[in-house]
Amino acid sequence: MSTEEIMLAIGAEAKKAGQILARAHRAQKDKALLEAARLLRERTADILEANKIDVAAMEAKEASASFIDRLKLDGERIEGIAQGLEAIAELPDPVGGVIAHWERPNGLKISRVRTPLGVIGVIFESRPNVTADAGALCLKSGNASILRGGSDSFNSSSLIHKCLEGGLVAAGLPKTAIQLVPTTDRAAVGAMLGGLNGAINVIVPRGGKSLVARVEAEARVPVFAHLEGLCHMIIDKSADLAMARKVVVNAKMRRTGICGSLETLLVDRTVADTHLLPILEDLRDAGCEIRGDAGVKTLAPWVEDATEEDWRTEYLDSILSVRIVDDLDAALQHIEDYSSNHTEAIIADDAAAAERFFNEVDSAILLHNASTQFADGGEFGMGAEIGIATGKMHARGPVGLEQLTSFNYRVRGTGQARP
Amino acid sequence: MSTEEIMLAIGAEAKKAGQILARAHRAQKDKALLEAARLLRERTADILEANKIDVAAMEAKEASASFIDRLKLDGERIEGIAQGLEAIAELPDPVGGVIAHWERPNGLKISRVRTPLGVIGVIFESRPNVTADAGALCLKSGNASILRGGSDSFNSSSLIHKCLEGGLVAAGLPKTAIQLVPTTDRAAVGAMLGGLNGAINVIVPRGGKSLVARVEAEARVPVFAHLEGLCHMIIDKSADLAMARKVVVNAKMRRTGICGSLETLLVDRTVADTHLLPILEDLRDAGCEIRGDAGVKTLAPWVEDATEEDWRTEYLDSILSVRIVDDLDAALQHIEDYSSNHTEAIIADDAAAAERFFNEVDSAILLHNASTQFADGGEFGMGAEIGIATGKMHARGPVGLEQLTSFNYRVRGTGQARP
Repeated sequence: MSTEEIMLAIGAEAKKAGQILARAHRAQKDKALLEAARLLRERTADILEANKIDVAAMEAKEASASFIDRLKLDGERIEGIAQGLEAIAELPDPVGGVIAHWERPNGLKISRVRTPLGVIGVIFESRPNVTADAGALCLKSGNASILRGGSDSFNSSSLIHKCLEGGLVAAGLPKTAIQLVPTTDRAAVGAMLGGLNGAINVIVPRGGKSLVARVEAEARVPVFAHLEGLCHMIIDKSADLAMARKVVVNAKMRRTGICGSLETLLVDRTVADTHLLPILEDLRDAGCEIRGDAGVKTLAPWVEDATEEDWRTEYLDSILSVRIVDDLDAALQHIEDYSSNHTEAIIADDAAAAERFFNEVDSAILLHNASTQFADGGEFGMGAEIGIATGKMHARGPVGLEQLTSFNYRVRGTGQARP
Repeated sequence: MSTEEIMLAIGAEAKKAGQILARAHRAQKDKALLEAARLLRERTADILEANKIDVAAMEAKEASASFIDRLKLDGERIEGIAQGLEAIAELPDPVGGVIAHWERPNGLKISRVRTPLGVIGVIFESRPNVTADAGALCLKSGNASILRGGSDSFNSSSLIHKCLEGGLVAAGLPKTAIQLVPTTDRAAVGAMLGGLNGAINVIVPRGGKSLVARVEAEARVPVFAHLEGLCHMIIDKSADLAMARKVVVNAKMRRTGICGSLETLLVDRTVADTHLLPILEDLRDAGCEIRGDAGVKTLAPWVEDATEEDWRTEYLDSILSVRIVDDLDAALQHIEDYSSNHTEAIIADDAAAAERFFNEVDSAILLHNASTQFADGGEFGMGAEIGIATGKMHARGPVGLEQLTSFNYRVRGTGQARP
């Protein structure tokens, strides 16, 4: 069979499995997850063996240290994957949840009830743990999944996937409910982006910017993704200095490689003299490189020059661009011009400034007096997330179990005819 | 300028207007709607004059009577359009509405708040009233709109659009918030389907099946639409006969041309002897043609033969296909095989049968003991709808003001840093 034929068959199987999953009870789905976790622990040695083959191949290709780190598994990481499955089993089942309920004057009772989306395609790169995380979130939300991992992690992902299959079978669910694409042919990705003849309802890319860009450009089905998280923080003229120092350093330096890390700081000119230098010194002491505009450099001559390119750059590193702005208007305009619509924050004691920020900035997540690093489904209380979306349709912000569902209307009558 | 250039300029203007509309207060939007209604009444004579030109042109082309009826305006219809605008002004403003609110253990207060989608493209055919209805719904939900009407109604739509522009200007809003495509060049539609360089967030087609099919096939942006409403009703073995007679006749015959009208009736074999004949006779007396399978014909030899094609046909006419099914399983299977995922209903006294129906049928609207003709945003209490969607993403079922919005997360802290 050609890759195209293989993928169409996978799509058809997934659609069938999705119809069964949509009706599966919570206990059955949870059993599959718990059994998969048990199998992961039981087969740890085999998985590590397979992972060694993947890692050796990439080391032979002289892959970067960070690439190898994402690929490499150890006992602790596998235990972490198993615990992740158990945590998803403990989350409430979104399917069947009543989003809204109301009664009409004619006595009709209308409920809007969560239903699965159907089939979710997940395209990811080197992290083999995504096999388990993504497959489990799709399963719990009643969706069949088609997982396409990077060829670099194929051996590791395949063994992890076998554990998921084992869980499904033990729970009496079709093992086609979570399928791993069995070929490393890149044509498989193109086929998924085409939707597999209508079988795929949504695609979630998990990986770097080039993967997401390709998926967004080529997908013929809806995509839940963010291209980048170019996060801004405004230090308003009403900002408390101690709070600003603490929150800025956390937003930039807690973890620099995540999409919620701060990339550009906008400081109101009114408080530049008092607030800017202590903040910049805190950042420098924490190991952060600063790139500032002319105003920033006047106050702190030791910072690097910021160029137009800096305002457009998601560093994902210990680097921060800093700009002095005339007022809140100018700060909001900078965000409108450069934002990736992911996450922005404002530090302000003035409630009116915060409300303007909330009402005028068009990003998925807006924070007042809190670190941008909270842009995360877990931190939002969603339990787990499959990613963060910056689109405006269906899911926006963290994509958790509820965001992986659709809904329908269920109307209960007593024989009503429409007049 | 080429049509492509004109359309890109319209898209850019709409995007700018959308940013202003997103921040507009309810009073301003309502003022624009009320003023537009006033202008419509004031300019009724001019609009009727323009409409006469459109109608005469189509009569010269020997358009069908139903086409002319959709196109034709009179004083009463214009008054209806004006009242429609006033009704939308009275609806609550969805923008800024809090969908959910919760607090985290660390004290962060998280709200999910409705925001506009941005720019909505509406592509419609001969009904000039859609100019006002669609433009008003988009305005009230804080979205700029780009309206592309049929060339057949161009003169009528243009004058109605002038009233909307007058309302916007009177309310201090940009008149580019509601734009009517100023050319009848068909290339304009293709440009809109391409998204106008990212300016259009969603497209709503309003018209016949061929328009919707083209939009769904070619659009590179999300679409809210239904291709057809092939609605089914199950007469369960537990169905009350009097209720079934009343509801079936209403579902089929109240209005046959709407998407919620019944097209296929599925009768449980257990009650075929008692229920089927009275229902069929009621339908016949109401002027409905019946096309039945062999079992139906045994009971009522006067019905026409149903072919495979009948199960796939949305008649939108006084015709009903009728099939006797062995049990609820068979009825659900028929729906799975033939449904357009729009609206289905079951008549049953047995609550367990109704729950199975609700849990196993994957359509936007499901009704128990009520007519399929209730598949309508107004009947759902949404005030007004721009259409009904059968997709699973974002909007499903009636698309009212709330469905024309997105949301973002607004997080209020007191200086929290992420551990």
